[in-house]
Amino acid sequence: MAATNASGTTTVRYGGMRAHVLALEVVLPGGRVIRTGSRARKSSAGYDLTALFVGSEGTLGVLTELTLRVHGIPEHAVAVRISFPTLDAACGTAVAAAGAGLGVTRLELLDAETMRAVNAFNGTALEESPSLFVELAGAPAAVEGDLEALQELAEENTSFAVERDPTARARLWQARHNVLHALVAAYPGKEHFATDVCVPVSQLPAAIAHARAELDRAGVEATIAAHAGDGNYHVLFMLDPADPAELARARALNAAIVDWALEHGGTCTGEHGVGLGKIAYLVHEHGDLLELMRGVKALFDPNGIMNPGKVLPEPAGAPG
Amino acid sequence: MAATNASGTTTVRYGGMRAHVLALEVVLPGGRVIRTGSRARKSSAGYDLTALFVGSEGTLGVLTELTLRVHGIPEHAVAVRISFPTLDAACGTAVAAAGAGLGVTRLELLDAETMRAVNAFNGTALEESPSLFVELAGAPAAVEGDLEALQELAEENTSFAVERDPTARARLWQARHNVLHALVAAYPGKEHFATDVCVPVSQLPAAIAHARAELDRAGVEATIAAHAGDGNYHVLFMLDPADPAELARARALNAAIVDWALEHGGTCTGEHGVGLGKIAYLVHEHGDLLELMRGVKALFDPNGIMNPGKVLPEPAGAPG
Repeated sequence: MAATNASGTTTVRYGGMRAHVLALEVVLPGGRVIRTGSRARKSSAGYDLTALFVGSEGTLGVLTELTLRVHGIPEHAVAVRISFPTLDAACGTAVAAAGAGLGVTRLELLDAETMRAVNAFNGTALEESPSLFVELAGAPAAVEGDLEALQELAEENTSFAVERDPTARARLWQARHNVLHALVAAYPGKEHFATDVCVPVSQLPAAIAHARAELDRAGVEATIAAHAGDGNYHVLFMLDPADPAELARARALNAAIVDWALEHGGTCTGEHGVGLGKIAYLVHEHGDLLELMRGVKALFDPNGIMNPGKVLPEPAGAPG
Repeated sequence: MAATNASGTTTVRYGGMRAHVLALEVVLPGGRVIRTGSRARKSSAGYDLTALFVGSEGTLGVLTELTLRVHGIPEHAVAVRISFPTLDAACGTAVAAAGAGLGVTRLELLDAETMRAVNAFNGTALEESPSLFVELAGAPAAVEGDLEALQELAEENTSFAVERDPTARARLWQARHNVLHALVAAYPGKEHFATDVCVPVSQLPAAIAHARAELDRAGVEATIAAHAGDGNYHVLFMLDPADPAELARARALNAAIVDWALEHGGTCTGEHGVGLGKIAYLVHEHGDLLELMRGVKALFDPNGIMNPGKVLPEPAGAPG
């Protein structure tokens, strides 16, 4: 389920989606069809089962219909690409822009390595340095005022490109949209493995500096992209599938990155979900909630037939 | 728990609050203390227990700490009071303003009867006709542009008062803040009883026209106030506590109002919650969810000691 929020072009899960999902049709494991929520913007009618299903990764029921709250297309929008001499300068500007009350509708960060891959893939000549991609939207006068404020906040920039025409804006955003394709093309034969922590936005510069330092210390090649407006960032490892040591190193780095995020008020997964790969991190983050979560799972899916084995760890002493 | 959203000065429950509650500390019925959520803006780490507790009306656990996402004070704001010749004109303008992409941060409707009570209570001489109270906030140029747009949308207005100075803005809003006190003073010895349906915003004019017609048909005195930006409105009955027939009439009208809301995609309670008084409406609205809601209740509060008897109906056949 895709949505555009402060994190822009990404697919977001329930942390970002909940406010936009008004109602659901769900098929329960026994085949019964239920409807949660309503088309009203708010409701206090009983427990919020809509929120419980959104982000449950198919483990409680099958979502067959979603009613979303939609928003009008803004009257005016500009797309901005800003280059910085350092990752820290880009992160600092992102935090300032996210907190300044500007009409920021997308706020994305790509590191220098990602920009290099994007240039190679798209045949472009963009500055290969840490870059922010920003969308400002709203009334024309407000957008132009916000643009001036953004330029002041980005005082360390080495380039500041603004596009107003819809076609040019789409071209500017294409660099961001193509990131995964660009990285796959830049590392032929490799497989990608991504971290997904989300931290309080104010912690983003320190979080990314920590991740970058850990990567450098381990001598591991990886790129960093952030949905900076949400404090959500991904370290993307491109791994040789024939070398299990590479995956082991990436996993160890991911563990260090998750530990740092949890120590600083964050979460192990901003949008990708738990699945199988983050069950141990969920235990670390919400160990005190596992009993309740298991109870919810047993209530909705007593026979354990919905996406079995995902999200929650097997109870201690259980087979397998 | 109070919050300022599109519905302005009101206390909103989980429909409006969920997006603002990042984390909770909760004491479970057995005494165990748990923490849900994190300080990150989004998370996909397991089931959304934060959303399950918010709006559960004390039936699942005691909330002892809330971590809220806060928003900066806007650079500029104006307060606007607009009078209309008819309730329908006021409602129509509210729907248009809510959907026009303006920077509307509060959007409240009071009917003529309420305005009369407010004047008597505050010693003011405001126009005693259906009125909108609107706050526009954001960058100065955007706010002034939005104000022009609002004036165009409110073309049927009979007065359009704008305040920019913080003291004058607070005075303008005082009329809205004092509504309940004003009505209690206007009907000495009476007790108030309020409906709380919320409908899709586009349905608000028809919903309020229906309610007004039902009230007139029954010859019952009651006032109407709406958090118009949310599609949430209250019919406020002032009842003689010594006359049970008055309460019975109000209850019958409430039932008709709830029926209309549910037929038009709405909910029986936008923000007041279910408590005891709306259990029958919850059954009407979400009968297919009761079994799951009861299961959630039994999971979190197996001994039924948390706010017993509230929100959920007794199971069929259970002792009364």
